[in-house]
Amino acid sequence: MKSALNFLVAAKRCEIAELQALALTSALVNVTGRLVHGLQRERGLSNLYLGSNGARFAPERQAQIGESQGIEGELRACFDSLDTDSATVGNGARLFSRIAYVLHGLDALPGLRAQIESQAWAARKATEAYVRLIAGLLAVVFEAADSASDPEISRLLVARFNFMQGKEFAGQERAAGSALFASGRADATEQQRLLHLIDSQERCLQVFAEFSSAALSALWSQNQPSATLAELERMRRVLCTATHGAALDANQSPVWFDCCSQRMDRMKVVEDQLAQELLRVCEEKIAAALRNLQSFTALSATAPRESDALSFFKDAQPGGGTMGLASTSGAAGLTPPQGYGPHLERSILELVQEQARRLQSMGDELDTVRASLNERKLVERAKGLLMAHRQLSEEEAHKTMRQMAMNQNRRLIEVAEAVLAMADVLPDRRR
Amino acid sequence: MKSALNFLVAAKRCEIAELQALALTSALVNVTGRLVHGLQRERGLSNLYLGSNGARFAPERQAQIGESQGIEGELRACFDSLDTDSATVGNGARLFSRIAYVLHGLDALPGLRAQIESQAWAARKATEAYVRLIAGLLAVVFEAADSASDPEISRLLVARFNFMQGKEFAGQERAAGSALFASGRADATEQQRLLHLIDSQERCLQVFAEFSSAALSALWSQNQPSATLAELERMRRVLCTATHGAALDANQSPVWFDCCSQRMDRMKVVEDQLAQELLRVCEEKIAAALRNLQSFTALSATAPRESDALSFFKDAQPGGGTMGLASTSGAAGLTPPQGYGPHLERSILELVQEQARRLQSMGDELDTVRASLNERKLVERAKGLLMAHRQLSEEEAHKTMRQMAMNQNRRLIEVAEAVLAMADVLPDRRR
Repeated sequence: MKSALNFLVAAKRCEIAELQALALTSALVNVTGRLVHGLQRERGLSNLYLGSNGARFAPERQAQIGESQGIEGELRACFDSLDTDSATVGNGARLFSRIAYVLHGLDALPGLRAQIESQAWAARKATEAYVRLIAGLLAVVFEAADSASDPEISRLLVARFNFMQGKEFAGQERAAGSALFASGRADATEQQRLLHLIDSQERCLQVFAEFSSAALSALWSQNQPSATLAELERMRRVLCTATHGAALDANQSPVWFDCCSQRMDRMKVVEDQLAQELLRVCEEKIAAALRNLQSFTALSATAPRESDALSFFKDAQPGGGTMGLASTSGAAGLTPPQGYGPHLERSILELVQEQARRLQSMGDELDTVRASLNERKLVERAKGLLMAHRQLSEEEAHKTMRQMAMNQNRRLIEVAEAVLAMADVLPDRRR
Repeated sequence: MKSALNFLVAAKRCEIAELQALALTSALVNVTGRLVHGLQRERGLSNLYLGSNGARFAPERQAQIGESQGIEGELRACFDSLDTDSATVGNGARLFSRIAYVLHGLDALPGLRAQIESQAWAARKATEAYVRLIAGLLAVVFEAADSASDPEISRLLVARFNFMQGKEFAGQERAAGSALFASGRADATEQQRLLHLIDSQERCLQVFAEFSSAALSALWSQNQPSATLAELERMRRVLCTATHGAALDANQSPVWFDCCSQRMDRMKVVEDQLAQELLRVCEEKIAAALRNLQSFTALSATAPRESDALSFFKDAQPGGGTMGLASTSGAAGLTPPQGYGPHLERSILELVQEQARRLQSMGDELDTVRASLNERKLVERAKGLLMAHRQLSEEEAHKTMRQMAMNQNRRLIEVAEAVLAMADVLPDRRR
């Protein structure tokens, strides 16, 4: 018959297995991040190539395609190495579905490149195709962030996802700004879009700052020297404040592109550091859990089974145990049982209670991290609802919600909840 | 190299594995529920036995102990049958830890029974010992509810957990009321405790009503005939409204006990029905997923790999793909690809997109279910904080929060959030 200690050991093994799976997923996300970076560059160069009617940037683009293909091969190898047979990955169903979507997109990539090569597609259409593929890749990263049950790791994963998403908005800002400068004329709709991308980008970077370590936040600050930032903000002002129809200097297009590219390369440095930090934390936690497991198994060889039986009920006191969840993690007896040598002073009961407390506090912290992910999901969902119902673009939907929040002096998440609460009442015009 | 379809199949397999694990956990929870029911009766009879100074209810108690022991054996066998070696269960670490805690309590049960047998422990202390053990068992049920990723099943699990928790409050109400009648005198503190138990019970039953099916809610209504309910409410009124120190009719104690016991037996009927419903839903979903899986694998034999490559980008349109999560589940192209026979009209892309949409909507619904579990956790945690900081009993902490909610015209969950936000500021006197 299995004892309490058997289950303690099993619980610890599960924890270790999950951490190892996380370390594996983390490696996968690293390659995903590199492919995203490569495709972002490829998207930028394709834009310049199409913008110059094929006259310029053809070799740069070809070189970048070669690089992207190399990373794509690595990512496919990563996918291949995933254990798809034993159905054991915690978040398997969702993660695998996202990967299926990405693979479909990667299969379509040669076709997309051919359309660009022959200039059959306009810059805008090509950009949106890359945006879609990158969105699919980022969804893989998101699923990884959603699955961790260790709060420290979960915080870093949330920080990483938001940083990568912020970088993607920066990439889209680069494309939109380049096109706007190149067109030689200010356009109110495009300016609105640009503002939206800047705003979305800053929200992501703020979540990153909240959830990452102080060291990583500092690294990101260092990677944004004031001079570069001032130049970026100056060009943003020029782009966004010009009156609709006013002339823009088309020669500024490559300057803007380079300035944005520098920013994105620096973001990649921080992203890589974040990835290393994650792997380090995973490895540390695996090592700690393994040491823990050893001490458990050492104990199982010596401990008598009913040693401290009644101490289970020791602190049972009025009102202390009415709520299932509170009581199992509450202040239960921690005095070592009498009559055993020092090596048994940390009795099994203590271990069980320590484990319960630890899981509870991990669960509490995890709830906080998840809440942030959840808020994000709610805002996205409310936006989608407004888009469907009022036939709004994403920017317009976001702006509407932000306006509602300002007018009603409420947080964006509260507005989102209010919008979603109306979901059953609003007809969906898409259907 | 693995294709999109490989990962679709793998995702489906994960889904099936999770459903099967759920069906297994569900069976475990059924036995847990039966043991809880047995221990609740044992607790009641032990109370009556101790209350009569051992003069009455000894044989009834012995018979019930025998029954409890039988179910305990079944539950231990269930625990033994769990796969603790492969560390594959999704929620393994938490579930196994809860089981370790329960096993420790079960090991201590013979000691508890001996204390009661020899009347060494007072009724109140014995009751609290049973309360603690039952709380541990309900924590196992809670972990099961927390792990499901299918929203329909998750709803039923939440309904079941709350119903079982409500039944346990009913059991504690039975014990508290019996003791109060038996004491022959009204006591303000005990009356307060009783009101708190009734209130907690009703909150649980309300969550049950919100989350269970209409058929189950109806079944619960049928199992509460008006006559029985009226009698219960009459005795509740007598108990709770008597002035502190006023006389109570001690002869009403067994009448109250029987009335409450009837209620609990009827609750068990509903609980069993809920369990059957859960198993049925699990089995249906497993069967559907298996059919789905077959259609996937049939497709993989015939489908060319790059069949509908560019259709991945087909609907790529401005503004449609800027948000990673929205875009993968958004309105992507659903037109069947051209050039294949009817058996291939449902292309892989379609399947991928359908799966993405399905997972998204399941995730959305699941968030709603989890939010309810989460609110519960937050309220409990805030209560624990108040108990630690202000040295309050659980009832007092709950009452304080309810009072704050009324005064500020806010929901209990909002008050809990406010209390928790102060956590870092408040010193914890326990430490």
